[in-house]
Amino acid sequence: MTKIDEQLQLKTAELVRQTNALGIPVMVIFEGIPASGKSRLSNELLLTLDAKYTNFYATKRPDEELLRYPFLYPYWNNIPKKGGVTLFFRSWYAQKLDYEVHGYKKDIIKDYELLTQEIKGFESMLSDDGYVIIKFYLSVNEQKRQEHIEQTKKNPLTRWKAQEYETNIPIDVYQDGMVNLMKATEEIAPWTHIDYTERGKAANEMYEVIIKRLEKALKDKEKISDERNGKFTEDFETDMFEDTSDDMSKAEYKELLPKLQERIRELQYALYERKIPLMLVYEGMDAAGKGGNIKRVRESLDPSGYEVNAISAPTETELSYHYLWRFATDVPRSGHIEIFDRSWYGRVLVERVEGFATTKEWQRAYDEINKFEKALSIEGAIVIKFFLVLDKDEQLKRFEERQVTPEKQWKITDEDWRNREKWDLYLEASKDMINHTTTEHAPWVIIPANNKRAARIKALKTIIATCEERLWNVKKLW
Amino acid sequence: MTKIDEQLQLKTAELVRQTNALGIPVMVIFEGIPASGKSRLSNELLLTLDAKYTNFYATKRPDEELLRYPFLYPYWNNIPKKGGVTLFFRSWYAQKLDYEVHGYKKDIIKDYELLTQEIKGFESMLSDDGYVIIKFYLSVNEQKRQEHIEQTKKNPLTRWKAQEYETNIPIDVYQDGMVNLMKATEEIAPWTHIDYTERGKAANEMYEVIIKRLEKALKDKEKISDERNGKFTEDFETDMFEDTSDDMSKAEYKELLPKLQERIRELQYALYERKIPLMLVYEGMDAAGKGGNIKRVRESLDPSGYEVNAISAPTETELSYHYLWRFATDVPRSGHIEIFDRSWYGRVLVERVEGFATTKEWQRAYDEINKFEKALSIEGAIVIKFFLVLDKDEQLKRFEERQVTPEKQWKITDEDWRNREKWDLYLEASKDMINHTTTEHAPWVIIPANNKRAARIKALKTIIATCEERLWNVKKLW
Repeated sequence: MTKIDEQLQLKTAELVRQTNALGIPVMVIFEGIPASGKSRLSNELLLTLDAKYTNFYATKRPDEELLRYPFLYPYWNNIPKKGGVTLFFRSWYAQKLDYEVHGYKKDIIKDYELLTQEIKGFESMLSDDGYVIIKFYLSVNEQKRQEHIEQTKKNPLTRWKAQEYETNIPIDVYQDGMVNLMKATEEIAPWTHIDYTERGKAANEMYEVIIKRLEKALKDKEKISDERNGKFTEDFETDMFEDTSDDMSKAEYKELLPKLQERIRELQYALYERKIPLMLVYEGMDAAGKGGNIKRVRESLDPSGYEVNAISAPTETELSYHYLWRFATDVPRSGHIEIFDRSWYGRVLVERVEGFATTKEWQRAYDEINKFEKALSIEGAIVIKFFLVLDKDEQLKRFEERQVTPEKQWKITDEDWRNREKWDLYLEASKDMINHTTTEHAPWVIIPANNKRAARIKALKTIIATCEERLWNVKKLW
Repeated sequence: MTKIDEQLQLKTAELVRQTNALGIPVMVIFEGIPASGKSRLSNELLLTLDAKYTNFYATKRPDEELLRYPFLYPYWNNIPKKGGVTLFFRSWYAQKLDYEVHGYKKDIIKDYELLTQEIKGFESMLSDDGYVIIKFYLSVNEQKRQEHIEQTKKNPLTRWKAQEYETNIPIDVYQDGMVNLMKATEEIAPWTHIDYTERGKAANEMYEVIIKRLEKALKDKEKISDERNGKFTEDFETDMFEDTSDDMSKAEYKELLPKLQERIRELQYALYERKIPLMLVYEGMDAAGKGGNIKRVRESLDPSGYEVNAISAPTETELSYHYLWRFATDVPRSGHIEIFDRSWYGRVLVERVEGFATTKEWQRAYDEINKFEKALSIEGAIVIKFFLVLDKDEQLKRFEERQVTPEKQWKITDEDWRNREKWDLYLEASKDMINHTTTEHAPWVIIPANNKRAARIKALKTIIATCEERLWNVKKLW
C-alpha cells in the first residue's frame, strides 16, 4: 500500500503560503459519486493547509431560502479572497445536476443548459482574474465503495449518515451529467480523474496536481501586465447624449407623480407575490439627480421589500475579491427590489478613467458584466439600467447651487470638481459602456436629466411599463 | 392636520451626517401591532437619511434555517457599522414574542425569560460601546387602523398582504408581552410611545426624539475617555499556571490517539443528529501547540461539519463594528463544530496588553464575554475553552527550533519575540481572564502543554467526556 508522501504535503503547504503572500486565490473542487472518497481526500488537503486562509464549503441540496437567490449565489458567497483557498465538497457542478434532477425553478429557467453557460462564465471570469481553479473527479473500486458504505451502516452512531449515500441524484444520472459538464468546462480549467481505491496513491496524485498548478500560477503571476490606460478606444462621438432636456411643467409633474407612485407600490406587491426580483441601476453624470430620482421611486414602496445600495469606493475587504463579488453577493431575494445608486459599472467608468483597474481588467469587464446580468435574467430578474444625461453647463449650475445652499453643501466635494475636469474622459467611457453592455435582457435607458421632473417621470414610467409587461406575460393579474 | 416639518427632516439628516462622520452607530426600532403605522413611519425616516450608510431590517417569523442559529444571530448580522444606521421594522422584541408564542426551541430554552436577559445584555453591550439605540412603540386609533386594513384588502394587488395583519402573534399577547419587555429594557435605552393616528404629528414627534438623542450622543462622544492601560489589576500571582507538564510516553500516545479520534468522529455525527453545536476555544502562550492540538481534533472529523476559525488581527471592516460582531456572526449552525484558534478573548489579552483597547473597553469585556457565552449555552451550545500553558524555557526552546527547521521558519516572526518580552504582562492578563470568565456554562480547562502528547490527549479526552455527558443527558444513544 502506497503511503502518503510527507514531502508532497510540505511542498503543497509551502506553495500555498507563497500564493497566499502574493494574493493568488485558489479553488479546489471535489466531485464524485457518494462514498467515492471526496470527504476523506478533501480532509487530507484541508489538514495540510493553514486554517488562517483556508475555507471549506459543502454543497447541499438547496433549501427554499437558497432557491430564492440565483444559482451561483452560494458560490459567489464562498469564493476565496485574494490569497485564500476554498475547498468545495461537491460544487456548482453537482448543484447544476441537482437543479435538473429535482426540477428546481423549472418555470423560470427555460433550459438547464443555460446553467452550464453560467458555470463557464463564472469560471472564466474568475480564471481571468487570476483565480486558480483545480478540479478533481473521484472514482473508486465498486467493491471498496460498498465496503465503506457497509461500515458506516454498521455503526449505530453513523448509520443515519449512510442513508445520504442513497438519496439525492441517481448515480448513473450524476455520472452521465458529469461527463458532459466536464467536457464543457475542461478548457477553462482542466479536470483530473483520481482513483481513490488506494488512498495513499490518490493523495499523492492530488498533491502532485496541486503543486504543478500552483507552481505555474506563481510563475504566471510575474508576467501579468499592470498597464493602466483609460484612453479612448474608439473615435470620440457621443450623439447618444445629445438630448439632455425633456420638458415638463410643475403642474403636470404634480398630477402624474402620485399616480405613478401608487402604481409602483402596487407593482411591488405583485412582484413580491410572483417572486420576481427587480434590479434598478442608476448611473449618470455627477449632479444628474440620481438620488432625487431614486427617492421618487422609493417614496411609496414598502420598506421591507426594497433596498438601496449606494456604491462608494470598495473597502479593503471588497478589494480582496473579484470586483463583482460585492454585487453578486448582494442581489435581491426573489420578489424583492434592489436599487443601485451607481453599480458594478464603476469598473468601466471611474476605475477605467482613474486607472484603478488595469487596461485588461476594464476591457474584459464588459463581457463579464453582460454574463453577470444574463445570469440574473435567466433566473427571472428584471434588470433596468438608467443613464441620466446632464449637459456640462447645467452641471456647473447645480454644483454652484449646492455650494451656496447650506443643507446641500455636504453634497459637493473637491472630488466632484476634479471629476468635472475629466468630463470628456467620463463621457467617452460612458459611451463605450452603453455600446458594449446594451443587451436584450438588460438594455440601457438613457434619460435626459436637465429637467429633473421629466427625468423622474420617465424613470417611473419605464419601471412601470417594464414590470407590467413582465407580469402580464407571466399571468394575467385581473 | 399637522404637516411634516421639513426643518426637522433636514436637522435629522444633518445630525446623522455628523454621527456618521464621527463613527457613532445608530439603531432605530419600530414596534407596534399590525397596521399601526410602523411601515409608513419607518419609511418616512428611511427617505430622510442617506442610503450610503442606512440599512433597513425587517424581522420576519424565523424560518427553519434561521432557527439553527442563536436567537440574536440575525441582529448581530444587522447591527450598523460605526457611523451607520439600521432601522429595525419589528426587532428582537417581536422575535422574543414569536419564540414564545410559537414555542420555538422549547426543548432547549428552559425559560423564555432567559431571552429577555439576552436582550438586556445585547443592548447594554452595544450601548456601552457607543451605539445609540432609539426605540419607538406605535399605536393608532382602532378605527383608523381598521380603515387602513380595509383599504389594503380592497385592492386586488395588495389583498394578500392584508392577511399578514391577521396571522402571527395574537394582538393582545403581543401588547401584553411588549408592556413587560419595555419595562425590563427601559433603563438601558428608553422607549417612546407614538400615536400614529395623525401622521404628520407622529413623524414630527419621531424626529424630535431622534434629534434629542443624537445631539446628546454627539456631546457625550467628546467626553469618552481614551485611556489605555493594560497594567495589572490585582497582585501578581499565577499559581494556576504552575503545572506545565503532564507526562506521556510515545507508546501510550500512539495507542490512545486513534481510539480517541475515532470516538470524536462518532460524537460529531451524534451531535449533528441531535443538532447540538459545539464550540472549541483555544488560547495559550505562543508556541504552546494550539495548532498541533487542533489538528489532532480535526484529523478524523467529517470536513463538512466543522470549521476552524484562525483569528488574526481584525480587518478594517471588523474594526468598524462592536468587537464581538465578527464572532457572533460566525457561530456554528446547530449540529456543527466551530474551532477557534484564538478567539474573542483577544480583547482581554493582546488588545489589553498592547493598548489596542481602552482600559474601559477591556475591563467591561469580561462581563460582555460571559453574556455572549451564556447566550450560546442557553440555546444548547457546548462551549469548551482550553488554555495551553507552557513555561518560559520551553517556549524559548520551541522558538529556537522553529528558526532552524526550514519548514517551520514561517511560524516564527519578530512579533513572537516581542510578545515574549511581555511574558509577565500576558501571564497576568491570562490569569485575570481565567478568573473573570470561568463560568458554569463555559469553564476554562487549563492544559499543561510542555509535553505536546499529553496536552493533545487531555484536550481530546475533555471534549469526549463533555460531549458524552451532554448526549446522555439529552437521550440515551443505545
